[in-house]
Amino acid sequence: MKHYLGIIGCGGMGQYHFMTAPKSQGLEVAAVYDIRPERVKALESETVKGYYDLDSFLEDPKVDIVVTAVPNNFHKDYAIKALRAGKNVVLEKPATLNAPELAEVMAVAKECGKLLTVHQNRRWDKDFQMVKQTIEEGALGKVYDIESLIHGMNGKFLEWRAKAENGGGSLLDWAPHLIDQVLWLTEEKVVSVYANLFHVLGQEVDDYFKVILKFASGAIATVEVGTLCLVKQPRWIVHGTKGSMEIEDFGAKIGEIVLDKEHLAEWSEKIIVTDRGPTRTMAPRPKETLEFRTLPDVSDKTDVTEFYTNVMAAIDGEADLLVTPEQVYRIMQIIDVAKESDRLGQSIAVDL
Amino acid sequence: MKHYLGIIGCGGMGQYHFMTAPKSQGLEVAAVYDIRPERVKALESETVKGYYDLDSFLEDPKVDIVVTAVPNNFHKDYAIKALRAGKNVVLEKPATLNAPELAEVMAVAKECGKLLTVHQNRRWDKDFQMVKQTIEEGALGKVYDIESLIHGMNGKFLEWRAKAENGGGSLLDWAPHLIDQVLWLTEEKVVSVYANLFHVLGQEVDDYFKVILKFASGAIATVEVGTLCLVKQPRWIVHGTKGSMEIEDFGAKIGEIVLDKEHLAEWSEKIIVTDRGPTRTMAPRPKETLEFRTLPDVSDKTDVTEFYTNVMAAIDGEADLLVTPEQVYRIMQIIDVAKESDRLGQSIAVDL
Repeated sequence: MKHYLGIIGCGGMGQYHFMTAPKSQGLEVAAVYDIRPERVKALESETVKGYYDLDSFLEDPKVDIVVTAVPNNFHKDYAIKALRAGKNVVLEKPATLNAPELAEVMAVAKECGKLLTVHQNRRWDKDFQMVKQTIEEGALGKVYDIESLIHGMNGKFLEWRAKAENGGGSLLDWAPHLIDQVLWLTEEKVVSVYANLFHVLGQEVDDYFKVILKFASGAIATVEVGTLCLVKQPRWIVHGTKGSMEIEDFGAKIGEIVLDKEHLAEWSEKIIVTDRGPTRTMAPRPKETLEFRTLPDVSDKTDVTEFYTNVMAAIDGEADLLVTPEQVYRIMQIIDVAKESDRLGQSIAVDL
Repeated sequence: MKHYLGIIGCGGMGQYHFMTAPKSQGLEVAAVYDIRPERVKALESETVKGYYDLDSFLEDPKVDIVVTAVPNNFHKDYAIKALRAGKNVVLEKPATLNAPELAEVMAVAKECGKLLTVHQNRRWDKDFQMVKQTIEEGALGKVYDIESLIHGMNGKFLEWRAKAENGGGSLLDWAPHLIDQVLWLTEEKVVSVYANLFHVLGQEVDDYFKVILKFASGAIATVEVGTLCLVKQPRWIVHGTKGSMEIEDFGAKIGEIVLDKEHLAEWSEKIIVTDRGPTRTMAPRPKETLEFRTLPDVSDKTDVTEFYTNVMAAIDGEADLLVTPEQVYRIMQIIDVAKESDRLGQSIAVDL
């Protein structure tokens, strides 16, 4: 069945939804709304009705899916209004400012019998899918350390993302993606959250965070985002009992999987003098004891249009929803605990 | 004044002391002792008396400095015996199995009026000195994140280092160095310790650790050691408000300092489409807005023989001791808390 998208907010992400809504698969952008008339004008056309007033937008009978591409503090109210107007709702991430806000929206969605989801589009990222597939195949053995790192160099957030009242800052901007991804790499519960947020440039909002999630087995995952990190770190590092994996960048063009081929072999028995002192444990390892694999092909798992095709199929009762509000509620709970962990300066035990 | 070294333990580290004691600066190896006769035989000579019995070794009147290069659980008892025999004592690291043991040894040293120190030789490591000098010069601005990482690939500890009763494992092997170094990079107190230890290969002892120290200002330092990390990470990463620093390896042959030259410039105002989605904060940064510096020359700070020349000068009353037991007691307290943090699965607030 064909579906019609209405976009609230015509800024960067609104334009992204406008451009990427999969028309060939039956999703047509039918309406846009923004409080800034010039932004609406730039997108309206014969097939896209521009609205300068929210109530009229919500009354458009053609629109059956509304996406909230507005500053984070407006997500909740716009979503509730759209649900009450009988629309299905896609929340941009972060779904809301915190878990209690999301619970409110979820309650309204239930009451109205409408679909609610969140635009967790980075589930289709190539780098993430490569990590997921490699871990699932078991090549790395039992994984005990995952590091998901994004280091930018531009040192600031802009416009509303720089403002606390709008829910700006690095944690709300990136943690919804990075935590979502990490939670897909294991079925274990999170038992502890330890977070450090920084205001590196003295901004109103945090611009660097390091959050460590500890899982029930003891395995840990670090998710880290910086905006003024002038030396480059890999996008992903994963260590398991049988080997390690590294992906250099978002595009996943560079990276490798290195496995332990001959484990307790003779080569490690000798003391080797390195740059600083004698060592056996830290001695360089002969290449022939390692197996090098290239990053796997995940081209069948990176079509982000699946997000909207699934939303449409779920509305039509033909598929289960991929991004459920319950999944995202768990993410928001973890983010709330991360903020509290930073405030207290200590880790916090959870059962999430 | 000339001094005479007696070495307890003729294994790897005993041989290291044997070979590196700075004879030209007045330190002569006069005696060696080991419970394994063949080890003693290999080192004894006309000028080096070999002992097969501890009491006789400790009665050697020529020896005035004794170093304990034995498994960690024997440090305390040997040190106390040597002090009571009127010797000055150099403890190999870790000084003892824990802080209370070190306190015992310190009390005996005080009672006997003898010098007690610990072989914290990695204070003279080139990579560490480069980080220390760069931070002290202020080039990086206010430093908020320090990562000191050592990733080996050989996947196991050998001999006594693989045994819990001997105080084996990665934490006791490496944290004494890495924490000592990090504590020299700031004058702040440690306010929180969060540690995760792993038994990656199911060994009796931990073979991977990640310890995060939080300082009074909120800055954090990660010290991390792995023994089966098959992808390479840099030895050091440091982020400050004005730039970042990276050193690839122990030898400090590769690395760089990258500084923020034109901070809030026009280049960051545009949305740039990267491999995955549009971004401004994470957009690539033009090279001309950065300043690249090579690693500093620290050749005047890496002469590790200064350790023993200082010990001798301190015994002779000509210099203050560089590595004081009090400094190392603080390190051992942090390590004790790290173990407890791992056991509890949570961070622990401290005032150290």
